Amino acid sequence: MKKGFLSVFVLVFALFVSCSPKKEQKQEEAPITVSNDIERVEPPHWWVGFKNNKLQLLVKNPNIANSTPKISKTGISIKKVTKADSPNYLFIDVEISETAKAGLFNIDFTSEDGTTKTQTYELKNRVKKAEDYIGFSSADAVYLITPDRFANADTSNDINSSLLEKNIDRTDDYARHGGDIKGITTHLEYIESLGYTAIWPSPLLTNNMPKQSYHGYAITDFYGVDPRFGTLDEYKQLAIKSKEKGIKLIMDQVANHCGLEHWWMKDLPFKDWVNYQDKFINNKPVTIANHKRTSNQDIYASKADKKEMTDGWFGNHMPDLNQRNPFLATYIIQNSIWWIETLELGGIRQDTYPYPDKDFMANWAGTIMDEYPNFSIVGEEWSYNPLLIAYWQKNNPNKDGYESNLTSTMDFAMQKNIIDALNEDETWGTGFIKTYEGLANDFAYQSPIDIMAFLDNHDMDRVYTQLNENIENTKMAVAYLALLPRIPQFYYGTEILMQNTAKPGDHGLIRTDFPGGWDTDTTNAFTGKGLTNNQKEMQRFMSNLLNFRKQSKAIHKGKTIHFAPQNGIYVLFRILNNEIVTIILNKNEDPYQLDLSRFKEVGLDGKKVTNIFTGETLVWDNNITLPKKGCYILTTNKLKK
Amino acid sequence: MKKGFLSVFVLVFALFVSCSPKKEQKQEEAPITVSNDIERVEPPHWWVGFKNNKLQLLVKNPNIANSTPKISKTGISIKKVTKADSPNYLFIDVEISETAKAGLFNIDFTSEDGTTKTQTYELKNRVKKAEDYIGFSSADAVYLITPDRFANADTSNDINSSLLEKNIDRTDDYARHGGDIKGITTHLEYIESLGYTAIWPSPLLTNNMPKQSYHGYAITDFYGVDPRFGTLDEYKQLAIKSKEKGIKLIMDQVANHCGLEHWWMKDLPFKDWVNYQDKFINNKPVTIANHKRTSNQDIYASKADKKEMTDGWFGNHMPDLNQRNPFLATYIIQNSIWWIETLELGGIRQDTYPYPDKDFMANWAGTIMDEYPNFSIVGEEWSYNPLLIAYWQKNNPNKDGYESNLTSTMDFAMQKNIIDALNEDETWGTGFIKTYEGLANDFAYQSPIDIMAFLDNHDMDRVYTQLNENIENTKMAVAYLALLPRIPQFYYGTEILMQNTAKPGDHGLIRTDFPGGWDTDTTNAFTGKGLTNNQKEMQRFMSNLLNFRKQSKAIHKGKTIHFAPQNGIYVLFRILNNEIVTIILNKNEDPYQLDLSRFKEVGLDGKKVTNIFTGETLVWDNNITLPKKGCYILTTNKLKK
Repeated sequence: MKKGFLSVFVLVFALFVSCSPKKEQKQEEAPITVSNDIERVEPPHWWVGFKNNKLQLLVKNPNIANSTPKISKTGISIKKVTKADSPNYLFIDVEISETAKAGLFNIDFTSEDGTTKTQTYELKNRVKKAEDYIGFSSADAVYLITPDRFANADTSNDINSSLLEKNIDRTDDYARHGGDIKGITTHLEYIESLGYTAIWPSPLLTNNMPKQSYHGYAITDFYGVDPRFGTLDEYKQLAIKSKEKGIKLIMDQVANHCGLEHWWMKDLPFKDWVNYQDKFINNKPVTIANHKRTSNQDIYASKADKKEMTDGWFGNHMPDLNQRNPFLATYIIQNSIWWIETLELGGIRQDTYPYPDKDFMANWAGTIMDEYPNFSIVGEEWSYNPLLIAYWQKNNPNKDGYESNLTSTMDFAMQKNIIDALNEDETWGTGFIKTYEGLANDFAYQSPIDIMAFLDNHDMDRVYTQLNENIENTKMAVAYLALLPRIPQFYYGTEILMQNTAKPGDHGLIRTDFPGGWDTDTTNAFTGKGLTNNQKEMQRFMSNLLNFRKQSKAIHKGKTIHFAPQNGIYVLFRILNNEIVTIILNKNEDPYQLDLSRFKEVGLDGKKVTNIFTGETLVWDNNITLPKKGCYILTTNKLKK
Repeated sequence: MKKGFLSVFVLVFALFVSCSPKKEQKQEEAPITVSNDIERVEPPHWWVGFKNNKLQLLVKNPNIANSTPKISKTGISIKKVTKADSPNYLFIDVEISETAKAGLFNIDFTSEDGTTKTQTYELKNRVKKAEDYIGFSSADAVYLITPDRFANADTSNDINSSLLEKNIDRTDDYARHGGDIKGITTHLEYIESLGYTAIWPSPLLTNNMPKQSYHGYAITDFYGVDPRFGTLDEYKQLAIKSKEKGIKLIMDQVANHCGLEHWWMKDLPFKDWVNYQDKFINNKPVTIANHKRTSNQDIYASKADKKEMTDGWFGNHMPDLNQRNPFLATYIIQNSIWWIETLELGGIRQDTYPYPDKDFMANWAGTIMDEYPNFSIVGEEWSYNPLLIAYWQKNNPNKDGYESNLTSTMDFAMQKNIIDALNEDETWGTGFIKTYEGLANDFAYQSPIDIMAFLDNHDMDRVYTQLNENIENTKMAVAYLALLPRIPQFYYGTEILMQNTAKPGDHGLIRTDFPGGWDTDTTNAFTGKGLTNNQKEMQRFMSNLLNFRKQSKAIHKGKTIHFAPQNGIYVLFRILNNEIVTIILNKNEDPYQLDLSRFKEVGLDGKKVTNIFTGETLVWDNNITLPKKGCYILTTNKLKK
């Protein structure tokens, strides 16, 4: 945040609120002169009307510690001022009373020598009620996007000479390729046409890192949009346009670490702002996280291992933030709220959930959920162990008393089960039994329907590669995921069978450019130009499936019944009142006559059902002939267009 | 139970109580004439002084349903008489008041034609207080024995011409080999010398089946000892002699099914005594259990699958008992109590735990634990899923509200983890990380220390075979198991590296004869004659280990700290007050200098520790040199002889 930015920001905000249906803010007090004497105040602005009326400002300016801050505005009072270890920081605890009105006001910093610096700060009115921030749910289908690799709608922002990584190179899997926020906004119609109701772009905040800055997880400014992705205004436009299409915007946040080039790394406020900070300052090697994630729960874990897990750096270029420092903790929490409020978010995805201090994470999630009771947060714990998936979800009766306050966790266990189920031959313990028994673990989850499930993501091989480029298996995986009592998430390009078969495990290749996202692309998946028939068919398949899912209350919140796999066939039902959706996964290559008497308890006998892909109807009676391997989805409802 | 048996039994009992320190029972009422007019009354006798004063007698005699029973004894009253579907059964509910005294009394059955049959029944005094029945615990080490294959101390009982399987054949892995109860009793000193404090023989009750009757799990008389294993008196002698050596006797019970040749199968009391009974009677094929054990917990499981799991037969020769029939339920519960009381058991191992009706099993375990508050019961669920291991243990906060009342479950997950950990190379996700992360799952168990862990059992390959006959790995597995916060169970013969490498998975071979158990054996593991040096060394190793464990309170109930595996080394500590036991598992073939600074928090610095195998001592300071691959166990206590 540089001087002069606030003025621009106020202007942008004015444009923004003029678009909103809310009443224009009224300034009761005398107009003030806008001053920007201070290098950095964060959060850069705030709002009136939160349940929590506390605000803590980080103020950064040379020798600011020698100054005393003063605020003269009705309803705004300074409760505490804290000096940091660096003389260039002050932390100001402010209380915003119920009577405080939105508007600009000045903070005067008077130094020991009597000189005064003035910083204008703004409190805004909130755009909507807290309970109207509706998070993602099992009624949604989520499209995960790596923004640098999706679509480059603005080539003018591809290179930014003020940042460390200056070039783009689409031939290098680990360089920036130029994709941007506008590229997503431009193609919202495509995303909507596929039936998605939520997008999760990986982080869009500034990653001013010398290399591999494209992925976004080494944030160097928690309040700045990376200029190569676009502007804050463009991010807001994405939010607005998404909302218009009924698409929720999920923000990918990182509380565990920052990028090594984060602005504060050159002048850290406290001696314990970052873990292993002393070593870092003395240029000694830092301890890298041992990645022993189970030490978070393990009642036998050594203190040494726990510390290496929680305090160790995620990588040499990612300093581990010390959330036990209360000022850092507040900074992170306020930052999350700032983005929710600024972008009217439909959810947060929190990176590397088991790596930060877990009590802080509970506090972070709890504070957000307390402010936004209908919001959603999903935490990433890469574990195939259902015990850990259960542990992190709110209200789980953890024996250590831990309450995460987290609405959603990531279902890596289900991801592996689905892949194994389809890759393996059917035997006593392999094949569909993996999904049948895997789904049975739901008995131990506090709220299975709020868990996010997926087939792949930006950190693992593309599902088409994982399934050895078998199209029928890929369709079955996609369809099963879409029918589960879960929040389904798909990775961009699954709909056109994107793969990384040439280099399994290669992150750069996993995040391949989406064809058509660049003007020079000869293939265009947005228009269909140059796609193979298989790709077109997969697009149609997913569009049919997700648009059907979008309307199916039985899938959103119906009860689930499944039957143990038999003879290479696995059948699952979703049921709500009169709506019954059936999915039959069939591994038999030859026509197979499925006896339906086993499913009597579902109550389908004599009912007309429609195949959602073909539109064909049939009456459910004695048996169904499954002509070939693949998935069949039947619904008792009429298909809507 | 045949006519005349009771008289013999009374005599045996008289001998039995004469050995006990209790006062001789006093018979206040007039002596009665012993009559045995009735074919079968079960339980064959009972006791006064139970917390639960109810007793339900199964009476079987031709046309007994036409009779009215009468009891004339102070404090004993008939509360209800129930006719069954078969006219040859009566169920009599009796209440035993607090004033009832032990002794014989007659039950008179007067039929409609006025004739009376008389059966003498006995109530005994209990030998000890309910709270003195102490079950197995983490202070114990359990020796699992397949009795037919351990030692044949009485060749006179090898063949019983009144039973269906008449021959023995030691060259046939699935025939009877002649081992018996006396064979165990005779070798208790050997078992004691190895450091065991509990034995678990697989079932010793009558299996009058035409073939494969040796394993004992197809019981045809729940009150009869299989004559080829010995007599009830010999079973009692085993109990008495074991107790003298501080060895608890665990009984292997089966509530799920009986053998197809069970006496009641020819004249079933009720139409629903056995599941799929109608089909059986009409000679139709029965439904076999689908073995979908997860349907017990699965909130989505179909009713059809649940029924096939619970009601299906375990095999064609094992009728599935219907524990929802209240008379069968009471029969099974009373049978368990009868054996606890008769043998002063130190625990029950319940077979195929997830197969019977689970509400019945909770009632069964609850009733036993209510009567014997310090008893132990371990249930067998063959699952590698910690969620299921947790589910079945008492007090687990199951989301479906299920309360099992079961003190202990079987840790198949840990079994697999240990084998994998030792067979796999050390990488990010393989090798010791399996045990490190597997043990971390203890956070989710209600009482990990009460879970029974093992390396193999009678149903899976011998641990030495599973570990590819690698001796050092086998020792590490054995030592790790012995040091865990668990109840460790080993299979007979592990101490002499018994294997089934020639035929993996072959149950008959897994249950190989113990050498020396037969007079003609040229090798004798009891005396050491003919054992290889490796076998002798393994015997010494286990004897050292388990005798050390027997005395180590830190292992029995100390806290556990373990450190994430590094460089092929995994270190775990057990700590209680001043006693610290260290186990170092080391995969490095070459000498390795282990830096001890990482373990500082354990508090061993400067302390003298003794290697429990070599007796060597050293002071714990900067590092230890591990000369070669293997396990090292160090204790701060002095070694006792």
